[in-house]
Amino acid sequence: MRMRKKPGTEDKLAVIGDLLVRKPEELKGHWRRAFSAEQPVHLELGCGKGQFITGLAARHPGISFVAVEIKGEVILQAIERAEAMGLTNVRFIHGNVRHLHEWFAEDEVSHLYLNFSDPWPKGRHDKRRLTHHRFLKSYSRILTASGWVHVKTDNRDLFEFTLNQCLDLDLKLKNISLDLHGILPRGKYERSVQEDIVTTEYEDRFTRMGLPIYYAEISLRPIKAKP
Amino acid sequence: MRMRKKPGTEDKLAVIGDLLVRKPEELKGHWRRAFSAEQPVHLELGCGKGQFITGLAARHPGISFVAVEIKGEVILQAIERAEAMGLTNVRFIHGNVRHLHEWFAEDEVSHLYLNFSDPWPKGRHDKRRLTHHRFLKSYSRILTASGWVHVKTDNRDLFEFTLNQCLDLDLKLKNISLDLHGILPRGKYERSVQEDIVTTEYEDRFTRMGLPIYYAEISLRPIKAKP
Ligand SMILES: C[S@@+](CC[C@H](N)C(=O)[O-])C[C@H]1O[C@@H](n2cnc3c(N)ncnc32)[C@H](O)[C@@H]1O
Ligand SMILES: C[S@@+](CC[C@H](N)C(=O)[O-])C[C@H]1O[C@@H](n2cnc3c(N)ncnc32)[C@H](O)[C@@H]1O
Repeated sequence: MRMRKKPGTEDKLAVIGDLLVRKPEELKGHWRRAFSAEQPVHLELGCGKGQFITGLAARHPGISFVAVEIKGEVILQAIERAEAMGLTNVRFIHGNVRHLHEWFAEDEVSHLYLNFSDPWPKGRHDKRRLTHHRFLKSYSRILTASGWVHVKTDNRDLFEFTLNQCLDLDLKLKNISLDLHGILPRGKYERSVQEDIVTTEYEDRFTRMGLPIYYAEISLRPIKAKP
Repeated sequence: MRMRKKPGTEDKLAVIGDLLVRKPEELKGHWRRAFSAEQPVHLELGCGKGQFITGLAARHPGISFVAVEIKGEVILQAIERAEAMGLTNVRFIHGNVRHLHEWFAEDEVSHLYLNFSDPWPKGRHDKRRLTHHRFLKSYSRILTASGWVHVKTDNRDLFEFTLNQCLDLDLKLKNISLDLHGILPRGKYERSVQEDIVTTEYEDRFTRMGLPIYYAEISLRPIKAKP
């Protein structure tokens, strides 16, 4: 059974303010100019209700943020949140990540965030996982050579899949964490845990359940280098 | 409180047969010849009671295996097991991994196994972890350029530490598994699990407890390449 959309989502999206970019393809190659200040652009794919992207945007006024989300009901909440916070350095695209190249030009994005992406558990659906090597290759075009993809997930299998996709492509990884918030019992094991993390809705939910969060940063430079 | 050694360990080691190599430094550069057939040498560090190395040796008569273990009581059991199995393609060194370079010459080892290495949980003891970058660098000398280090552990923190040591050194990784035996519940997630794995004593114990095993393969070639 499909969930019915909340009545009025389309109507609300139709009248919502400027944070929703209605024709992202017209900004291709000009995203920096879409914001009041010309500054680096960071992109989140599958932003959900926007807790993460609005949290980042509030903390980093010197960066411009763009968030993509396919579900109308969900992105509406993200936009309303950003408006309520009075943010001017964030924009939203209501659409499918598959169309990224219609919206962004080469090297237009400095950092990319993938938070709790859908795991697509069936083996034959692996191409839909946002860290499938086809997606990684496609991100490499819009990401600068010095940029990083930041991946966070609760899903051990998706994380393992992601790491191995990266290794197969000879990508550079860094800052792998198998328990980002250090919530699992670890006996006497001493480790430093980063305190200052902007969390997502899913992240808060899983952390409350006592589940560990997986994290890694990926450089796509090795794919970009190839002709 | 220290455990007293079982009485007679030293005596038993003194009279045990040829599988115990008493002067490994005399074989440096000549390990292939220590065996009846000249074939590739695989090395395990911290073999414990030898279930893994004897299992491998029985399966792969075309490979010569050497296992290092620091505890006399423990290596004695490993040697007795190998003798009982009638193995001729395995040898044991009773000593500390720190002395590896007194025993093995450059490029003398084709594969290296680190199974459930001691985690050394205290931060200031990190240099003792067998996957500390200093150890990895030291292994790179005795390992051939096409060789791999195979790491297995139950310890999530040690595994995370190991991955990040490798990434810091720009090493190549492959076949990462966050649940080698596929024992954790994974909902609908489909994945292939390798069935045909030679296990260690610790591995069997943790698997029976329902704990996941972490695994990765590491190529040290990038360090070797450096002058
Ligand atoms: C599991 S939720 C995580 C939401 C949020 N990132 C968080 O961590 O709380 C995944 C989100 O990605 C969106 N999504 C999945 N595939 C997408 C695609 N191809 N294009 C755009 N959004 C997508 C879903 O609609 C959903 O809101
Ligand atoms: C946790 S046990 C694991 C034993 C076995 N590999 C297994 O998986 O069942 C670690 C073993 O490594 C040995 N060991 C630790 N540090 C060592 C070192 N520096 N040199 C030689 N052996 C060492 C210990 O004595 C112990 O038997």
